Amino acid sequence: MRWSQTLIPTLREAPADAEIASHRLLLRAGIARRLAGGVYTFLPLGLRSLRKLERIVREEMDAAGAIEVLMPALQPGELWRKGPRFDAARAVMFRASSAGRKADGDMFLGPTHEEVVTDLMAGTVNSYRQLPRTLYQIQTKFRDEIRPRFGLMRAREFVMKDAYSFDVSETSADASYRAMYEAYRRIFARAGLTTMIVEADTGVMGGSFSHEFAVPCEIGESEIAFTDDGSYAATIEKAVARPEPRTRPSAPTPAPEKFPTPGVTTIEDLDRSHGVAARDQIKTLVYLCESKLVMFLVRGDHQLSEAKVGTLGFAEFRPATPEEIFAALGAHPGSLGGVGKVRPAISRIYADSDLRDECDMVTGANEDGFHLRHVDIGRDIAVDEYRTLREIRDGEPSPDGKPLRVRRAIEVGHVFKLGTKYSEALGAEFLDENGKSHPMFMGCYGIGVTRSLQAIIEQHHDDDGIIWPAAVAPFHALVTLIDSSLAGQAKQLHDRLEAAGIDTLLDDRPERPGVKFKDADLIGIPVRITVGEKSWKAGGVEIKARTAKEKSLVPIDRALDAVKALLAMA
Amino acid sequence: MRWSQTLIPTLREAPADAEIASHRLLLRAGIARRLAGGVYTFLPLGLRSLRKLERIVREEMDAAGAIEVLMPALQPGELWRKGPRFDAARAVMFRASSAGRKADGDMFLGPTHEEVVTDLMAGTVNSYRQLPRTLYQIQTKFRDEIRPRFGLMRAREFVMKDAYSFDVSETSADASYRAMYEAYRRIFARAGLTTMIVEADTGVMGGSFSHEFAVPCEIGESEIAFTDDGSYAATIEKAVARPEPRTRPSAPTPAPEKFPTPGVTTIEDLDRSHGVAARDQIKTLVYLCESKLVMFLVRGDHQLSEAKVGTLGFAEFRPATPEEIFAALGAHPGSLGGVGKVRPAISRIYADSDLRDECDMVTGANEDGFHLRHVDIGRDIAVDEYRTLREIRDGEPSPDGKPLRVRRAIEVGHVFKLGTKYSEALGAEFLDENGKSHPMFMGCYGIGVTRSLQAIIEQHHDDDGIIWPAAVAPFHALVTLIDSSLAGQAKQLHDRLEAAGIDTLLDDRPERPGVKFKDADLIGIPVRITVGEKSWKAGGVEIKARTAKEKSLVPIDRALDAVKALLAMA
Repeated sequence: MRWSQTLIPTLREAPADAEIASHRLLLRAGIARRLAGGVYTFLPLGLRSLRKLERIVREEMDAAGAIEVLMPALQPGELWRKGPRFDAARAVMFRASSAGRKADGDMFLGPTHEEVVTDLMAGTVNSYRQLPRTLYQIQTKFRDEIRPRFGLMRAREFVMKDAYSFDVSETSADASYRAMYEAYRRIFARAGLTTMIVEADTGVMGGSFSHEFAVPCEIGESEIAFTDDGSYAATIEKAVARPEPRTRPSAPTPAPEKFPTPGVTTIEDLDRSHGVAARDQIKTLVYLCESKLVMFLVRGDHQLSEAKVGTLGFAEFRPATPEEIFAALGAHPGSLGGVGKVRPAISRIYADSDLRDECDMVTGANEDGFHLRHVDIGRDIAVDEYRTLREIRDGEPSPDGKPLRVRRAIEVGHVFKLGTKYSEALGAEFLDENGKSHPMFMGCYGIGVTRSLQAIIEQHHDDDGIIWPAAVAPFHALVTLIDSSLAGQAKQLHDRLEAAGIDTLLDDRPERPGVKFKDADLIGIPVRITVGEKSWKAGGVEIKARTAKEKSLVPIDRALDAVKALLAMA
Repeated sequence: MRWSQTLIPTLREAPADAEIASHRLLLRAGIARRLAGGVYTFLPLGLRSLRKLERIVREEMDAAGAIEVLMPALQPGELWRKGPRFDAARAVMFRASSAGRKADGDMFLGPTHEEVVTDLMAGTVNSYRQLPRTLYQIQTKFRDEIRPRFGLMRAREFVMKDAYSFDVSETSADASYRAMYEAYRRIFARAGLTTMIVEADTGVMGGSFSHEFAVPCEIGESEIAFTDDGSYAATIEKAVARPEPRTRPSAPTPAPEKFPTPGVTTIEDLDRSHGVAARDQIKTLVYLCESKLVMFLVRGDHQLSEAKVGTLGFAEFRPATPEEIFAALGAHPGSLGGVGKVRPAISRIYADSDLRDECDMVTGANEDGFHLRHVDIGRDIAVDEYRTLREIRDGEPSPDGKPLRVRRAIEVGHVFKLGTKYSEALGAEFLDENGKSHPMFMGCYGIGVTRSLQAIIEQHHDDDGIIWPAAVAPFHALVTLIDSSLAGQAKQLHDRLEAAGIDTLLDDRPERPGVKFKDADLIGIPVRITVGEKSWKAGGVEIKARTAKEKSLVPIDRALDAVKALLAMA
């Protein structure tokens, strides 16, 4: 391909709203152009890389036995309303509305295709003999992001690979899940993207188990906690630390005893004024969850994680106001506790797992200016459920005792075990050997393809530009012509490389060498061949890898081998 | 690919709303499934054919020097409002609206990409040195069809190849147009789709010249007129017939003369009552076009073509009501004419080209119960413009004197010369050699890819099913296993064909031979190989083309050659 005959509009400067390196490079290197917030046109270089990444995804999906289909972006509201997540998902769905004319029912632009694929299976498969099946597609998705940002990282229109497995049993579904999990590892490895595989919450998808393929990145939407050796990794919603060992008191704790704490409304106050270590206090927080008051208890030296509260399944929640709390419990925040009669004002009490079996603790007395001591949580508080509710902090020990790092990350892939939630709602059933009907066991599996492409740039660049891994580079080799007298020879070299299966770009523009070299670094083709008079007279061309500092003079008849050798390492 | 491990849900019966053969076969052969009106999921067979057709399109676009990009479906209203066709196009555009939240400006789902691509060029190309450029994409489009019908023929979501050329001059633009025109001929030829290339109107695209690639089809949305030998072909909006020769009267016509015609209100009435042949009358019709009254004149024996009125550029038009007409002209329909003082009530008078120079005609006197005779149109009526306005009927002579056929057709491709309408509106300008700025000359070129796929089925089927042309067949060969004892041998044969580059489907289902043969005919794979005990014992397998009646017994070591030979003819 000749540079002069394609469209590679490189830019010296990126627009000011491009906040991270990969976003700036996306624009500067002529990969993509912004049309609107979170909406991008793929230019030739970007499209070539995207197609190569798609091909890797497709090959691994096919190798894993998944079947490719192509489902529509337009999805009827009628179908969504039958499914289990319409209320939760509609906030991020675009509606495709008719201009002043009544359509046959409302339509949405699908953010994913659980409803559509389950309905498809319901209509086409009905026997255990036709299962298992995993269907996948590589397709354009839409998401009505409140605040599209960071280029393709948080876009409103993007390419996704989504796959859905259907099985006769949970055991079989586990095998389908595992096949996708392994395929994802191979996909990211082949694409040159280093991911962390973290245990993840199932969120709005409503599954029972999931893993996230995450790329640590300062602008990530979520946090992950992991050990340096990879022995432990989880999203912040799932992460747990190893509890500190504690000796239980030898004598039984006396009954709870109220004591005055005038003006004391924080953990620190109580420590300072009464010498009660934060470690020995129970912190009590009250939230309004779907119009009911719910109490959360964590240790005084811990913080409640709203990310973890978000995994409890409440459609909406927020901290209750002091007025709401006073009306319910007769006390203000700072004097609250779970001991005594808190029902029915409080509908449910969750306690963090680290509080289980804690004895002789101090907590609020539900009376302003008073606390209770000698509280045994198991004896004195009617906890409904112990859960991992507290925030994990950087440096805490992992469950296997190694220091945890907490970092922001972006999700590039996600595998979910869904169970039968969708198949029951949408009637995807099969008849077993005995003619008995059961809902199919499902899994769903996503890769953000365009997001992954940008994540590759985020992982592979330097100050001068992109450093494409060969597998997803738009071209493998760049022939830079710096003396127009050698145009014919440069074209011949280009053609020879192309004939050998090496995707080659020929920079034949009438630009100064300095401009061409700068652009070459910027667009990041793995191998660069410079055709100029000086080296030509010395018997060859200069070849260098994008990452190398020095060029080598290579005789023209050995250029192909040299390029191949460098590519094998890129 | 094993049939048992993919998803080919063949149906004995098609849903009742499938009105044409290709729509029925689309559903029955497991090509696609309806999700909503005009919205389809592509199943594995359909997706394979679609990808093959896309590859043909891509190869020919690349060979013609066009540059592939990928533009978004979401398009900002702000950009559309700058362009020249927002008001005309919005009726068929879906709006992507946010669920209860204010987005940054309104967004639409693009039916085509003139605005987006012109804006892209405006932002990336500014010198004559960077031109010409033709950009294309293969991308999913949305169209808010009032009445989606006929499967993929009139869909609301569909795949289109759209290309846009940008040139420095009209001459150069003509060359770009021609390159696309020729590429389209090759694409349809390679895909096995017989198209008629017809001169077409430019409609809402607002171009200055266009050709349509049409497939005659009973359910087509439009009509085309053509001669059997292909010497003439045009859309009904453009079609003209050869005017009948007429001898002009030797003596000058006297001045118009009013005569009473009580109760006469039709062409036929006047013929019967006064012996004035329809051929000698001027028929006068009044339309309300964008709130102004416009008069259309055609010969008495001709019909006004509303399709042709539609090409005049009025955003909306309808026949005026008798009340509106009486208020304007003081007479009712049946007594109208263009002679005398009709302005300013009538804003414009169009006359059909066949009326040019007509003398001694009869027309209404704009007084109920009276007509005028001795009307010379050039002398007596202030015609603003002569245009081809009349309907062409099946059997009339073409301009070159051959019988015209008028048939319904569907448009599968369209090439337009656009001129500078979009580039002026959206600022796509270039600097010439002298540093002077000019708008780029544009062309736009579309192929309905999914529509073409169904058109191929419409052209290639029989009572038993589809007959895929090899180039777009989902598989080239179908190995039908009819005795499970030969499963290993059938698989070996499948693998051998695959290794030779022949896409092969192995029907390994535990079904009766009759079911498999019926399905084989239905899905229409070009070559069928039957592996059964009887022929195996006789030393080989049975091979037949989809279209052949008889099978041939072919020794197993010659099967590959036999398949190749049949494929070369498919």
